[in-house]
Amino acid sequence: MGGRALVQWEQNRASAPDSLTVDLYAGGAAPEGGLEDVAFYQVPYIPSSQGVDERLDVIARMPSLEVVQLLSAGYEHVLPLVPDHVTLCNGRGLHDASTAEHTLALILAAQRDLPRWALAQRDHRWEAVPLRSLADSRVMIIGYGSIGKAIERRLLPFETEVVRVASRARPDEDVHGVDELHDLLPGVDIVVMVTPLTEATRGLFGPREFALLRDDALVVNVGRGAVLDTRALLAENGRVRAALDVTDPEPVPVDHPLWDAPGVFFTPHIAGGAAAFYPRARAFMDTQLARWASGQPLANVVQTGDTSR
Amino acid sequence: MGGRALVQWEQNRASAPDSLTVDLYAGGAAPEGGLEDVAFYQVPYIPSSQGVDERLDVIARMPSLEVVQLLSAGYEHVLPLVPDHVTLCNGRGLHDASTAEHTLALILAAQRDLPRWALAQRDHRWEAVPLRSLADSRVMIIGYGSIGKAIERRLLPFETEVVRVASRARPDEDVHGVDELHDLLPGVDIVVMVTPLTEATRGLFGPREFALLRDDALVVNVGRGAVLDTRALLAENGRVRAALDVTDPEPVPVDHPLWDAPGVFFTPHIAGGAAAFYPRARAFMDTQLARWASGQPLANVVQTGDTSR
Ligand SMILES: NC(=O)c1ccc[n+]([C@@H]2O[C@H](COP(=O)([O-])OP(=O)(O)OC[C@H]3O[C@@H](n4cnc5c(N)ncnc54)[C@H](OP(=O)(O)O)[C@@H]3O)[C@@H](O)[C@H]2O)c1
Ligand SMILES: NC(=O)c1ccc[n+]([C@@H]2O[C@H](COP(=O)([O-])OP(=O)(O)OC[C@H]3O[C@@H](n4cnc5c(N)ncnc54)[C@H](OP(=O)(O)O)[C@@H]3O)[C@@H](O)[C@H]2O)c1
Repeated sequence: MGGRALVQWEQNRASAPDSLTVDLYAGGAAPEGGLEDVAFYQVPYIPSSQGVDERLDVIARMPSLEVVQLLSAGYEHVLPLVPDHVTLCNGRGLHDASTAEHTLALILAAQRDLPRWALAQRDHRWEAVPLRSLADSRVMIIGYGSIGKAIERRLLPFETEVVRVASRARPDEDVHGVDELHDLLPGVDIVVMVTPLTEATRGLFGPREFALLRDDALVVNVGRGAVLDTRALLAENGRVRAALDVTDPEPVPVDHPLWDAPGVFFTPHIAGGAAAFYPRARAFMDTQLARWASGQPLANVVQTGDTSR
Repeated sequence: MGGRALVQWEQNRASAPDSLTVDLYAGGAAPEGGLEDVAFYQVPYIPSSQGVDERLDVIARMPSLEVVQLLSAGYEHVLPLVPDHVTLCNGRGLHDASTAEHTLALILAAQRDLPRWALAQRDHRWEAVPLRSLADSRVMIIGYGSIGKAIERRLLPFETEVVRVASRARPDEDVHGVDELHDLLPGVDIVVMVTPLTEATRGLFGPREFALLRDDALVVNVGRGAVLDTRALLAENGRVRAALDVTDPEPVPVDHPLWDAPGVFFTPHIAGGAAAFYPRARAFMDTQLARWASGQPLANVVQTGDTSR
């Protein structure tokens, strides 16, 4: 680690070990000091941006690169841009509090008809109608990983029962494999999806899965939009409700039927990047830079580079 | 208990001990069989109804009355209608799950700008703006009673800190007395009010209390509308935000400034009467009737009548 580190926030530059040369880069034109000797690159975090952009383009112009550090949990779109000998770390854990609380906000908004009240308030309508509850619901979490567990912790005190699903069964943790999905769906009231987008999860929730849900069930997606089949959701026409933070397509084009779909409420991919993310991300970066400076193993490695190079 | 019992739900009539004569009365015209020998009267529960009405008027026409059973938590408005020799029981506990989850829905809606997204969705506007979090907030609960504790249980997993306030300090439980309110307010981000309406709580939160709150703080009221001074809230003009399930006046007249007040979101007194209430209320009534039939002490007594009469 003879090279420089690029980080986004002044706090991390200020608290970095003296042995490191650290510069700020928050996106935009290439950073002062150039890219030649950048060895540790924290890709600037910009809420709800997706896909390839200049923050990722600069990776190809960093010949001394050893570590790319993302602060997002999703990293699939970045993998192809990171050479094999470079270590890639993601932001696993940093979005848990923020994404999990948004998930509960979406679930409660749907059960408690909050969009209806917001519209009624705008129109000065006082309409006291009986409401669903979250209590007594059986909630399936598809993607019992870092965020999934954070969602569960927040759900349980609401007097709910949680059904855990991951890619493979882990009987010791009471986690079902996704191969059991079809057997489990008829028994749940609410399904929360919080998986990465992979070949296995694309379209995971489609017409067959909807058909297995009881009337008035609720589907929540906070993972990646394309895990849920939008056409299948639209075809439900309100029989099953949905509350989404991620959509396919994203953004939703102005004339798309999803805007007015009955029983569908969505927010524009804002779950993970709320206020709670920032202190957690800054604290993580302080520790990660200290690890790097002292040659300790990095946290959140999703691609192991060749550090001996 | 030689007399009859009147209850609202068939389940309770069906499961009542054989020794009891139980009839159904769900409001409206006086029940079949008359009122003469009614000894146990469960006042029919009608969500968000308030004040004096025929369900309460009939109490005066029940000469054999021994017990009035309310299923609401609030009972102040009924006390004057219940003769001293009659026992009055309320619905403490039955609304905890329902009211506490609505409280979390209101808090999360406010922190996560859900009314904004609902309106944006109606207008097909995709506006990804950064959001507040609930995590890392210090939340004061004024009214650390049955519902207040249920709110706390749901709040803590959101990585919040709770400040407990009740009418009197209980140091062993880390509960502050309301006399410490002014010292505590500057340190909190969110205030939840869930007290009954009494002479002591009317206008409890007014101009002085608002002035002690930091900018962008959130005030939530799920207790009774008049505990919060509506004019003081309006005078804040968005400096402090509010999310309310109870209002003063209630209902809010169509031309009232509260409808369009900046930073104010409200629902029409629907917190307690959601789906979760009903199974809890039915189970409670089964047990309460069994207690009454066997001469055991009743639960939730708020006025002790003269049972030896
Ligand atoms: N909306 C937002 O703002 C936002 C914010 C942050 C993250 N996210 C999304 O949330 C995802 C999850 O984040 P995380 O930090 O919780 O990741 P994580 O800890 O890696 O957990 C991912 C979970 O998904 C499961 N999974 C993977 N493939 C699956 C399949 N085919 N069927 C069922 N489950 C499958 C994994 O199963 P195993 O346990 O068997 O591996 C794991 O439990 C991210 O990848 C990102 O796409 C969204
Ligand atoms: N929005 C809805 O749909 C809905 C539904 C149900 C109930 N409610 C309202 O919620 C209220 C609370 O219900 P609950 O079952 O939780 O009652 P509870 O168990 O009797 O608790 C009431 C709490 O309020 C506190 N309190 C009373 N006077 C106070 C004062 N002057 N200053 C500060 N705290 C004070 C009490 O303090 P102590 O602990 O010192 O006695 C107690 O902690 C009900 O009375 C009702 O008005 C609303």
